[in-house]
Amino acid sequence: MKNIMCLNEIELETFLPEGRLDKAKALLNSPHYVDPTSVSSKDEWLSILKECDPEILMAGWKTPPLPENLSEVAPNLKYVCYLPGSIRKLVPRSAIENGLIVTSWGSSISRTISECALLLTLSCMRRVRYWTEEMHINGGWKTPETETQSLFERRVGLHGLGLISQKLVDLLKPFTDHISAFSPSVPDEIYEGLGVSRCSTLEDLFSKNDVIIELAALTPKTEGMITEELLRMIPKGGAFVNVGRGAVVDEDALARVAADRPDIQVALDVYGIEPLPVDSPFRGMKNVMLFPHLGGPTIDRRRDAGDHGLENLRRYLNGEDLMDPYDVRLYDRAT
Amino acid sequence: MKNIMCLNEIELETFLPEGRLDKAKALLNSPHYVDPTSVSSKDEWLSILKECDPEILMAGWKTPPLPENLSEVAPNLKYVCYLPGSIRKLVPRSAIENGLIVTSWGSSISRTISECALLLTLSCMRRVRYWTEEMHINGGWKTPETETQSLFERRVGLHGLGLISQKLVDLLKPFTDHISAFSPSVPDEIYEGLGVSRCSTLEDLFSKNDVIIELAALTPKTEGMITEELLRMIPKGGAFVNVGRGAVVDEDALARVAADRPDIQVALDVYGIEPLPVDSPFRGMKNVMLFPHLGGPTIDRRRDAGDHGLENLRRYLNGEDLMDPYDVRLYDRAT
Repeated sequence: MKNIMCLNEIELETFLPEGRLDKAKALLNSPHYVDPTSVSSKDEWLSILKECDPEILMAGWKTPPLPENLSEVAPNLKYVCYLPGSIRKLVPRSAIENGLIVTSWGSSISRTISECALLLTLSCMRRVRYWTEEMHINGGWKTPETETQSLFERRVGLHGLGLISQKLVDLLKPFTDHISAFSPSVPDEIYEGLGVSRCSTLEDLFSKNDVIIELAALTPKTEGMITEELLRMIPKGGAFVNVGRGAVVDEDALARVAADRPDIQVALDVYGIEPLPVDSPFRGMKNVMLFPHLGGPTIDRRRDAGDHGLENLRRYLNGEDLMDPYDVRLYDRAT
Repeated sequence: MKNIMCLNEIELETFLPEGRLDKAKALLNSPHYVDPTSVSSKDEWLSILKECDPEILMAGWKTPPLPENLSEVAPNLKYVCYLPGSIRKLVPRSAIENGLIVTSWGSSISRTISECALLLTLSCMRRVRYWTEEMHINGGWKTPETETQSLFERRVGLHGLGLISQKLVDLLKPFTDHISAFSPSVPDEIYEGLGVSRCSTLEDLFSKNDVIIELAALTPKTEGMITEELLRMIPKGGAFVNVGRGAVVDEDALARVAADRPDIQVALDVYGIEPLPVDSPFRGMKNVMLFPHLGGPTIDRRRDAGDHGLENLRRYLNGEDLMDPYDVRLYDRAT
C-alpha cells in the first residue's frame, strides 16, 4: 500500500509553496508521485491505482477521474484529499455513498470571495464600471452633476449567512453597523454573535437596504428565488451584488430591471451559464459591473486551500473530525 | 451686525440635511440668508457684506470671493465657516495673515478618501480596469492563465501617515498586518498606536511592499518626489495607487513605467493637471485604473462636512479650540 499524490507542477507551486510540499510528503508517508499530465490513458491511471493500492489520494484539477468500480480498483482507498473546489468530476457519487471520505478547499476560500464581494460593493457605490469606460475610452471627467456614494453608514443586506457572509461581515464592519441578513435556517446566536440583524422576508431584504449582496447556496428551493418583483424593490441609488450562484437569480429579469433602472448599480461575478455568453444582455450595460467568476481563491491564496488540505490530512491520520467533509447532500449541491 | 449664510440649494440639501440647517440657523442667531446664484455682481456682494457687517460667514462653493480690503468692507468679520474644502478662491491670503479664523471640511472627509484608496487597491489586485473592458467590450472570460491576487496578507506601504492614512489603516487591518509607512515627521507613538511599522527610506517603501499607496501632502519638498527610479522598484505583481496629490509623482515617468511593466497595476484618482487631459498617456492603458478625482466626500457624506462645520461653529461661539483651522502655512499648502 502506497499513498498517491497526483498534482501538476503549477498545483505543487501554488497550493503547496514554502515547505508545504515537504509537510504533505511526510504526512502521506513518502507517497507515489503522479504528474497528471503524464498519464496518457484511463487504463494507465487505473493500473497506477491498482499497483499503489493507496489509503489516501491527494488530488488536484488534473487528476483523472476515479472509476465507478472504485472498491475493486483501489479497495483500501479511504480518503481523497482534493485540494481545489469541486469534486464531482473526480469522485463518483457512489463512492461517497459507500463511505469514501472526501474533502476539498471547503471553507478555506471564504475570505477571498468575501473580499470580492466588498470590492464589487465599493465599485457600485463609486460606479467603477461607468468611470472605467468614461476615463479610458470617452476621454471623460467628472461634472458638478456627478453622483458619488460611499459605503459608510449604508444599510447592507445579505442573502445567506454562511461562512462567506460571516467573513464578509468582518470586512463590512469598518464601514457600517447597519447589516442585516435573510437566512431563515441560521439560528439567532449566529446573528447576535456577528452583530447582524435578521430580515424576516426577502421583500424586506430588498426594499430596506441600500446594498443587497447575494450569497445564498443554490438548492432546488433557492433556484430562481430572486424574482423581478424583488429586484424592482431595490431603493433608488441602491446596488445588487451577486458573488454566490447565478441561478439563484432570475437573470432575464435582472437584465430587464438593470436596463429599466439606471438609478441602481449591479455587479456580478457569477452567472447561470458560465462562461457568460458573448451575447449576454449584461455585456455593455453602463450600470452593470461584470467579473468572469474571479471570487474564488486568487492564485496567491491557493496556499490557504493547501493549508486546509494539510490540516485535514493531519486530522485524518489522528482520527480527528475533518473540516467540511462531503456527504451525499453536499455532493449533490456542489457545482 | 448680522451673520451671513451663503449656500446654494444643493449645498443646503447635501451639507445640512436632517435638522442640520435649523441647527446652523440657531447657532448663527438667525443669519441673513444669501443665495449665491442670485448675487449678480461683485458690488452687490460687497454691499451685502457692508450692510450685514457679520461676525460669522457660513460659506460654500458658490459664495463670491471676499475682497482684499476685507477689514474695510466687513470690519467685524471674525470667522468664516466654509463647508467645502479649498478656501483659496474665497479668502485672500492677507485675511489669514490678519487673523481671520477660517475652517473648511478639514479632516471630516478623510474616511471617504481612505475608502477610495481601499477600492483602488482591491481593484488593482483583481485587475478591475482590464476585466471591465474584457467583459463589456471584448466578450471575454477568464482562462487557466488568468492572474488574480488578493489583498490578504499582502505588504502595504503608505507614503504619508496623516489623517487619511490613519483612517485607511482601519480599513486595511481586516486584510493584513503588514502595513508600513514612510512619513519621517510623524512620531513613533503614532506608528505604534496604529500598528504600522516605519519605513526609513522611500526606496524601502517601494521595493519592499506589494502595494504602495501615495498619500503625501504636496509641498515644495514632496513635488516630483516619486521618481522613475522609485517606481521601477515596485516588485513584480505589485500596485501603485495615488489618492493624494498628482504632482507628488513624476507622472511622465509613471506613464513610462506603466507602459514598460504590464506586471504592475496602477490606479490613480489625482493628477498634476485636472481635469486629466484627453490625450493623457494614462488613458487607454490596460494596467492603469483611472478615476476623475472622486476620492473626496461623496455626495451622501457631505453631511459629515456639515457636522464638522457645525461643531466648529459651536466651538467658536464657546471660545473653544477649533478643529483644523487654517494658518498661513496650511493656506499655502492647499490646492
